[in-house]
Amino acid sequence: MYAESALDRRSTDPATSAVADLPAGSANGVMPASAPRDLRRVPIHPDYWYPLAWSREVKPGKAHGVTFAGDPIVIVRTATGRIFALEDRCAHRQVPLHAGVVDGESIRCCYHGWTYDCSGRCIDVPYLGKERLPNGVRAYPCEERAGLIFVFPGNPALAEQRALPEFASVADPKYKTRRLGRAVKCHYSFMHENLMDMNHQFLHRKQMGMMRARSLGRRRGEGYVEVDYTFEREQGKQPVGEALVFGKDGGQNNKDVMTVRTGYPYQTLQIRTSSGTLVMDLWIAYVPLDAAQRTNRTFGTLSIRRPGVPFALDLAWPLLVWFTERIFKEDREIVEMEQAAHDRQGEDWNHEVFPVIKELRELLRECGARTVIPIHPVQG
Amino acid sequence: MYAESALDRRSTDPATSAVADLPAGSANGVMPASAPRDLRRVPIHPDYWYPLAWSREVKPGKAHGVTFAGDPIVIVRTATGRIFALEDRCAHRQVPLHAGVVDGESIRCCYHGWTYDCSGRCIDVPYLGKERLPNGVRAYPCEERAGLIFVFPGNPALAEQRALPEFASVADPKYKTRRLGRAVKCHYSFMHENLMDMNHQFLHRKQMGMMRARSLGRRRGEGYVEVDYTFEREQGKQPVGEALVFGKDGGQNNKDVMTVRTGYPYQTLQIRTSSGTLVMDLWIAYVPLDAAQRTNRTFGTLSIRRPGVPFALDLAWPLLVWFTERIFKEDREIVEMEQAAHDRQGEDWNHEVFPVIKELRELLRECGARTVIPIHPVQG
Amino acid sequence: MYAESALDRRSTDPATSAVADLPAGSANGVMPASAPRDLRRVPIHPDYWYPLAWSREVKPGKAHGVTFAGDPIVIVRTATGRIFALEDRCAHRQVPLHAGVVDGESIRCCYHGWTYDCSGRCIDVPYLGKERLPNGVRAYPCEERAGLIFVFPGNPALAEQRALPEFASVADPKYKTRRLGRAVKCHYSFMHENLMDMNHQFLHRKQMGMMRARSLGRRRGEGYVEVDYTFEREQGKQPVGEALVFGKDGGQNNKDVMTVRTGYPYQTLQIRTSSGTLVMDLWIAYVPLDAAQRTNRTFGTLSIRRPGVPFALDLAWPLLVWFTERIFKEDREIVEMEQAAHDRQGEDWNHEVFPVIKELRELLRECGARTVIPIHPVQG
Repeated sequence: MYAESALDRRSTDPATSAVADLPAGSANGVMPASAPRDLRRVPIHPDYWYPLAWSREVKPGKAHGVTFAGDPIVIVRTATGRIFALEDRCAHRQVPLHAGVVDGESIRCCYHGWTYDCSGRCIDVPYLGKERLPNGVRAYPCEERAGLIFVFPGNPALAEQRALPEFASVADPKYKTRRLGRAVKCHYSFMHENLMDMNHQFLHRKQMGMMRARSLGRRRGEGYVEVDYTFEREQGKQPVGEALVFGKDGGQNNKDVMTVRTGYPYQTLQIRTSSGTLVMDLWIAYVPLDAAQRTNRTFGTLSIRRPGVPFALDLAWPLLVWFTERIFKEDREIVEMEQAAHDRQGEDWNHEVFPVIKELRELLRECGARTVIPIHPVQG
Repeated sequence: MYAESALDRRSTDPATSAVADLPAGSANGVMPASAPRDLRRVPIHPDYWYPLAWSREVKPGKAHGVTFAGDPIVIVRTATGRIFALEDRCAHRQVPLHAGVVDGESIRCCYHGWTYDCSGRCIDVPYLGKERLPNGVRAYPCEERAGLIFVFPGNPALAEQRALPEFASVADPKYKTRRLGRAVKCHYSFMHENLMDMNHQFLHRKQMGMMRARSLGRRRGEGYVEVDYTFEREQGKQPVGEALVFGKDGGQNNKDVMTVRTGYPYQTLQIRTSSGTLVMDLWIAYVPLDAAQRTNRTFGTLSIRRPGVPFALDLAWPLLVWFTERIFKEDREIVEMEQAAHDRQGEDWNHEVFPVIKELRELLRECGARTVIPIHPVQG
Repeated sequence: MYAESALDRRSTDPATSAVADLPAGSANGVMPASAPRDLRRVPIHPDYWYPLAWSREVKPGKAHGVTFAGDPIVIVRTATGRIFALEDRCAHRQVPLHAGVVDGESIRCCYHGWTYDCSGRCIDVPYLGKERLPNGVRAYPCEERAGLIFVFPGNPALAEQRALPEFASVADPKYKTRRLGRAVKCHYSFMHENLMDMNHQFLHRKQMGMMRARSLGRRRGEGYVEVDYTFEREQGKQPVGEALVFGKDGGQNNKDVMTVRTGYPYQTLQIRTSSGTLVMDLWIAYVPLDAAQRTNRTFGTLSIRRPGVPFALDLAWPLLVWFTERIFKEDREIVEMEQAAHDRQGEDWNHEVFPVIKELRELLRECGARTVIPIHPVQG
């Protein structure tokens, strides 16, 4: 509305004034000469394994429709338990195959009965001779691990050489695991930045009290950024819920170290005691659902090491569930506010001053797909 | 997302690979050298009579607002029972006349009281001299028949020479008629294709059992396509509801013939016994409501010949209503899925292999208006 | 759909045929040679004081988020009662400051705790040295008067020289004041035209009976248009609610005069008796909320002079509230219909014949901002 408004904004732009304000140690934080493309318009790279459903969502003899960045995909589990993934459309009239019928090791479209096998080949059109069968639909590599169904949405030739994530703590009986997940209305990059910047403890002050995160150092390598933190309580006492998740405060001498890592495209958060024991192990992925990549579905496993007393963690579990839900809700609300601001502003006005987040943003730009998400003007 | 996806899709495109797969007898099914315009973007042709309301919806002394392809139209029934149709906007401030007051043989806008007669002429502005009256609004030819109010939205000079549909069975006491109608969120062409392709019996397998349609032959002429079918039951018994609508199975020797005809812009479905008696007579029209023609309102009359036993059909009527509602619901859901797929794909990926449907698609393209519906990108 | 439709419309366009139809006395009503820009796309001018909240909406120690023409603004009231207004975004991650915490005389962002004073300066980032503080956000001039919080959204250098409105009747104990307000989904110009054209009494015929407004004369000057009316009852008796608001009918000799004035950007409606006593005094402003200026929030004060009998007005107040709510609802519905018609037509088809409204439209065009509101195609 008023011209100086834009000036105010530009003067707080990281590409201009903020560079000089960088804290020490930002050796990697060099800004490119030309303006970088808007991080919120970088598509996630499809040449990775992405969890698209929980195993329990795909029952035997049923088909389940999901999307990856706007591409509809049907996951089929046959009566024998085998899973496969196809484009979720009949080659004939384009209706979703997930509305169809699982028939032996194939899926039959609900409309005119066209039938596809696990490779996407059309193997039957009820009113057409077998010698005239039309082409079928695309199949996706599909694997099941740790209660998650992973699909490889990119170039299938690359699927084998790309490793699936490990879930060591989930399999280890010394840990108890909670599965987390919900749709969040924002670009996946906001999720990574939220978790990695532990200065956002202020957001959770009602759940956690006033905590100060101290960054011990960060590492950047091929496809990853990670950072270590310790925490100090500034005021108040430790809430019970937090003690369950993060372990009990050692008072002012707490030497537990939290490591947050984005190993593209996944993220982990691990807490180790001074003796090196892994007490908390979070693995999480943010899967874009829509073509604009403005909504992501979160799939996470949160593994907590069982304490010495048997069943103590099981008894405390409901409290832990409540606590993590509260934290997650606050995070969801704030990243959705960030997305709404980006929608209104039409570009990335983010003014980052924290070196590890600057590096994370570079990583997400470098590892993302080369294209740009088109965005439409938001009226309102 | 991944380049080969587009390749897969192209290879199933009827304009390329599928032509060779055509069943015999597709003499008319010649593909044009250049890509045809997208059928889902062909506007319905306005130079026909379209039902825009049921008679019972327009009460004496009341005005009723409808739309035809985004054009707002008000249908007025005066206290004396006369009907007329005008543009549904006051020439002054553009508010809908249907919110106004029927005053004698005219309609008065609710806002400042401007008044229009049945020809659309402005005959009163309460605060302006009669010698200064402004121009009025457009009037539409309007006729009432068989409980439907028909409007001619196109060039009014052509209205007289264009015949209104006949409703012989509706008027005939040997038949009992049910009126069908509902808004369906799709382009009208999906409706025509749905009804004409009887291979879609698979969709209604729960209502009808497994039936196989056999096409006996098809005819194409000026402004129409029609096709004859017989049916064979593949498995299971005939449900009671179906027997009511379609007549009782003659076992494997059922020689009833169903004829489905698109006589632009209407559609009919008739069933005749081997002796030539018309036992079922459906007339149906699909009227686009919005400018994008992505929603149509269906107006249909379903006439069933009364059996020899008096009142038998009346007793069975509730079951027939339930049965037709179930069938209609399944059809509505599937054509809305087709439209949603088209919205996402942005063009017509339909891969048709059935000759009569190929001809129907050509007919709808040829008879439609010459313009192209603009479509907006769908985000999501 | 049909070409003559457009012709019909053009022939009723004020820029062509209607000029000759002008009632006498439209000396100021000269049409420009070139087509004027669409009034519904003229942004309101930001260089005025606009009420953005009621005082009671901003509690001590709290922040309150509002918008002006799509610009988010936070109004903060500190514990000491001081108010200030800032851009409603944190300079860091752009989340709204209104979700933050009022801390002394400053506001702290809820996410990472960045803190801003009343001038918008960033005075604390908890994890950054004070010598490295980034730039802050814009501040807006902000004043409180008559229970309203006024903000100056335009060039702040002009704020002091631009007067705030006076609220003489609100402060005068001889009057009782009702505060009115609601969001209305239309461009602010429809609101001005609605109130100033008293020929729209026809709309309120159920509340007020059939009244005829007679325009006594109008005046146009720098930044204002005003018009005087008297009223005659055409039929029926005066409803009780109306007598309370507008005073009792003097039968056919009613000589009360109503003056409606748009003194840009506000509007007033005053009723004076023949002896010059001000019996009703309405002040109203229409504040665009969204960037497209398709929704406005109305802030009004309606002051009624107390009659001779003590407490009579207080006793009748609930009836008056009910009556004004009914009138306001009818006005809201009709202006929203006007906006919907404009959205569909894509341009201003308004065909105005009443001279004072023609002048009002010119005034709103001249006083509005110089830019043009972009509008997006409406599908449907």
